[in-house]
Amino acid sequence: MSHGFYGKFLEVNLSTGESRETALPDEDYRRYLGGSGLAAKIFYQRGYHKIEPLAPEAPLLVFTGVLTGHSVPTACKAAFCGRSPATGIWAEAAVGGYWPSVFKTCGYDGLIITGKSDRPVYLYLDGSGVEIRSAAALWGEDTYSTQDKIREELGAEVYVASIGPAGENGALIAAIMIDGHDARAAGRCGLGAAMGAKNLKAIAVRRCGSPPAVADAKDLTEARKAVMPKLREKAKGLTDFGTAGGVPVVERLGDLPIRNWTLGSWTQGASKVSGQAMVEAGLRVKHYACFSCPIRCGKDMKVEIGPYRGAIAHGPEYETIAGFGAMCLNDDPNYIIAANDLCNRFGLDTISTSSVVAFAMELFEHGLISEAESGGLDLSWGNGEAILKLIPLIARREGLGAPLSLGVRKAAEHFAPLAQEFVAESKGLELAFHDPRAFTSMAVVYATANRGGCHLEGLTYFNENRAVPASLIGLKDDYEPHGIEGKAELAKKMQDYMSVFNALGLCKFLIRGHIVPADIARWFSAVTGWDISEQELLHAGERLFNLKRLINVDLGISRKDDTLSPRLLAHDRREGAAAGSLPHLGKMLVQYYDLRGWSAEGIPGHEILTDLDLDFKRHVS
Amino acid sequence: MSHGFYGKFLEVNLSTGESRETALPDEDYRRYLGGSGLAAKIFYQRGYHKIEPLAPEAPLLVFTGVLTGHSVPTACKAAFCGRSPATGIWAEAAVGGYWPSVFKTCGYDGLIITGKSDRPVYLYLDGSGVEIRSAAALWGEDTYSTQDKIREELGAEVYVASIGPAGENGALIAAIMIDGHDARAAGRCGLGAAMGAKNLKAIAVRRCGSPPAVADAKDLTEARKAVMPKLREKAKGLTDFGTAGGVPVVERLGDLPIRNWTLGSWTQGASKVSGQAMVEAGLRVKHYACFSCPIRCGKDMKVEIGPYRGAIAHGPEYETIAGFGAMCLNDDPNYIIAANDLCNRFGLDTISTSSVVAFAMELFEHGLISEAESGGLDLSWGNGEAILKLIPLIARREGLGAPLSLGVRKAAEHFAPLAQEFVAESKGLELAFHDPRAFTSMAVVYATANRGGCHLEGLTYFNENRAVPASLIGLKDDYEPHGIEGKAELAKKMQDYMSVFNALGLCKFLIRGHIVPADIARWFSAVTGWDISEQELLHAGERLFNLKRLINVDLGISRKDDTLSPRLLAHDRREGAAAGSLPHLGKMLVQYYDLRGWSAEGIPGHEILTDLDLDFKRHVS
Repeated sequence: MSHGFYGKFLEVNLSTGESRETALPDEDYRRYLGGSGLAAKIFYQRGYHKIEPLAPEAPLLVFTGVLTGHSVPTACKAAFCGRSPATGIWAEAAVGGYWPSVFKTCGYDGLIITGKSDRPVYLYLDGSGVEIRSAAALWGEDTYSTQDKIREELGAEVYVASIGPAGENGALIAAIMIDGHDARAAGRCGLGAAMGAKNLKAIAVRRCGSPPAVADAKDLTEARKAVMPKLREKAKGLTDFGTAGGVPVVERLGDLPIRNWTLGSWTQGASKVSGQAMVEAGLRVKHYACFSCPIRCGKDMKVEIGPYRGAIAHGPEYETIAGFGAMCLNDDPNYIIAANDLCNRFGLDTISTSSVVAFAMELFEHGLISEAESGGLDLSWGNGEAILKLIPLIARREGLGAPLSLGVRKAAEHFAPLAQEFVAESKGLELAFHDPRAFTSMAVVYATANRGGCHLEGLTYFNENRAVPASLIGLKDDYEPHGIEGKAELAKKMQDYMSVFNALGLCKFLIRGHIVPADIARWFSAVTGWDISEQELLHAGERLFNLKRLINVDLGISRKDDTLSPRLLAHDRREGAAAGSLPHLGKMLVQYYDLRGWSAEGIPGHEILTDLDLDFKRHVS
Repeated sequence: MSHGFYGKFLEVNLSTGESRETALPDEDYRRYLGGSGLAAKIFYQRGYHKIEPLAPEAPLLVFTGVLTGHSVPTACKAAFCGRSPATGIWAEAAVGGYWPSVFKTCGYDGLIITGKSDRPVYLYLDGSGVEIRSAAALWGEDTYSTQDKIREELGAEVYVASIGPAGENGALIAAIMIDGHDARAAGRCGLGAAMGAKNLKAIAVRRCGSPPAVADAKDLTEARKAVMPKLREKAKGLTDFGTAGGVPVVERLGDLPIRNWTLGSWTQGASKVSGQAMVEAGLRVKHYACFSCPIRCGKDMKVEIGPYRGAIAHGPEYETIAGFGAMCLNDDPNYIIAANDLCNRFGLDTISTSSVVAFAMELFEHGLISEAESGGLDLSWGNGEAILKLIPLIARREGLGAPLSLGVRKAAEHFAPLAQEFVAESKGLELAFHDPRAFTSMAVVYATANRGGCHLEGLTYFNENRAVPASLIGLKDDYEPHGIEGKAELAKKMQDYMSVFNALGLCKFLIRGHIVPADIARWFSAVTGWDISEQELLHAGERLFNLKRLINVDLGISRKDDTLSPRLLAHDRREGAAAGSLPHLGKMLVQYYDLRGWSAEGIPGHEILTDLDLDFKRHVS
């Protein structure tokens, strides 16, 4: 029976040039859903986590989800996975756009790359296996021209995932970028450096017809049509202004990190850098949608400043505006657009990059970086020119850019003992830009996120700010944002739900369209022909969250690591809607571990592992 | 020539019952000054730091200073030293009163106790060696009755250092107390538990005439007389109200920790619990002076509450008032007096004990300790009755008292992950009660203190609040309390100066009487007959500070440990004179390490070790 996936993945060893196909049982797809879920299962089963992230033998896993590439709303994602060069623990970075759905036509559900080439290469999948091609002419190129040049060789039906100079140079905050000028990022965890360490510049994929047939195309069409009205209506804000439209409300709720997480209010600044303001200023050129997405949250904008003045670039997302705007006290949207474009070209994660820039600005304010050390850059708060000059230094790991390219935790170690109090991270990953002092459930989400300080593993600020009623997943809707009641349960349930998205290949913004687990279970059933209930789907999500925890536990992670930087736990702000609020993380964690069936040390217990079929001594080879 | 010391110490092995005398060269006394300095040298030279603190073979060192027992102002001190059961690093706890000066008549400069008795014993030094006597009838007694009972056996000329039930039971915040009802404490670092682990209840010493003769009695008399006017005049505040008189001004400057370090102002409370208020309330019965002290800062007070109502007790010091008053939001001085008396009887350090009580109150406030866990105690802020009930539980390690008896760092681990943000410590020792947000030099002092969060190793708040002009040691007098300029240098120089006090056997309150290094050098010269310059004295102080650092470095201490709990670095207060202030510890540490000749990791460098004759490969055994 057709069930929407190939049942096999490709392995390439760059040291030897060998490749092979490996088949997987259908049961693995049902249990782990593909994408980052299936990748995590293989990663753990093979003991890959014992390999240092930048060692030649370290694996990079790229997996599409079971739904990727099908006529399912937002089924556009692939997940890049491995062990993070930035944090040393589990890494996954999902990306949408078009490259994943094109990959899904090439005959494999995933790709595992091991080994290290002795010269720059890129991979090419054309539907009949894989070719290792020279990247001699691509090394040093930015991510836009990398796709351009590969398309010159191979044609316009080829889509490219590549690193920029940041990944080549080993910046630990380097991203993997796709789709060239239509830049989309597998941004977090520094997997760009993992590609760079392999001398692997790019992975090119040719559109080879359609993905594997689905089991019940008719029901899938009906199921898709059934959700379209609510999806379009509820997610309209995203359609109009993209994630950038959220800036004003986020600021109003005290959820926006300002001046490296020290201030609680920036109303005028927020109004200047919002998506609405950018549209009013005529900066928006057009809307953009990833594969199969009715929301169309992407916006292309004019670059009016900096070295690429005149170009059209992907407009900055909320996170990027928060990072290069509020975090750096820069209220000029043009510098944010240009900084975003630079990061995309160089292949840098904008959350981590803007975090290290804001960190550097705070050091500079306190005189902890001299102008000599900064290479003469005036890193005063809000200096947009300095931001644009610092980004290339980070990508090239030159001067001040060298320590900053390591991320805030390692940068603080570099500046030790000067700078420990200026970081905001968890498990070594810079916190995303939703403030756990505004919505305390996010303290739990960040502290327990399997890849470190990640917002996407929980997204509970959407529930707390009522953009996404928690009643959609069976919880109450009225959380007290600064209290802790019910927050552990909210975090746990949302993490389990969110765990299915990077696995199936869906975009998490579906929840902004009030898509519920039952919707996804129906799509999953129609594609595979299996009878998947909402309960089975969420159980799979819980399995995946725990599976990644097991990987991290094997790497030494426990309760001691489930925490946030002191700035978030001890520094309450003076202004804004969340003034005076601090999250009582400890109490929430106790409840959370209990709900998860984890020990007081944060280790998954026998009972929950058995319930989730994660007793790997029995179930996995 | 007579030079004021014996040149030998006594060693007793409680496992075997053997004792022996060991002679030391005069040069060691000149180089290490006796007391905690000489103890540290022997401790390091013999590799004692490699022994676990509570192991039977662990040594407890008790050393008087070269000046102890002589007619030198405040020459009343002995130092108990070893490896701290509380922190695992270097421990020293100095104590005044009379026991040390009596010890000094018994024929030895110090005592090293190793081994563990198989039943409770106490030591008795009567001028002709040492006797190990049964403590069967003393075990379980409090520290007052322990001296009473020993005196019943041995006479009133015997002075006793003992532990109470807290030390017997292994409370890691247990003190060693001396002089019975005239309670004085070797309080910090949990050395009471070290005695308890040896089944050693007490060390009794008989007054055996005079200490060894001094070299130049005439000059010593002149030198003493020369300083008396300034000493009496400048330290008059201490004479009138004791350290308790400092409460109002400390509060006014934002230097008083309130409600477990969260509030910045408590004006009315401070006025109620000050030494002045206690005197006005008729609670002060009489003044008390340690051996050879013209300041007489001790105050005996009436206990009007609790199980020992009607007793006369040592009045609470500033630290105890800050701890059981401000830290717990208790503004009734009677509860502070009673709590202090209870701690003295049970043998508990009042700084650490009040810290764990305030910690428990904050947990209770947040619902992190149920009434069941607290044994029904209502640990609401300010509940004096609850404080009096909790202290015996801590001493007995019963119920909630069990985790609290471990000190705040280990208690927070017990309650983990609930309570990490409620601690205030450095290297595992509870911070004393001067706020590094009020006087930023104290951040450096606490973070680098060799025994952990200790105020006495620097005492720079006296310089910052101008009670002791820093110009007396050649620095400027006008520090900006919340700024950082000059603070690293102030901390370093005061630490070097303060290092001579516990070594020579002097009280640090001499600086309140504007005693300067030249004064002490002259006394030291008169006693020993050596020609000691002010420079040589301070050089010795620097040697001792670095020697203890070397011990700690061998135990794994480095820059990573030179820090404070997040509450002090990240939580700024809303009220009071230090509102908004946070110490920039990192920047001060960089300057400090540089001034000390330490590496960026906080390790003493070759050059400074050579300069201080601490290149032990050459100089020591």
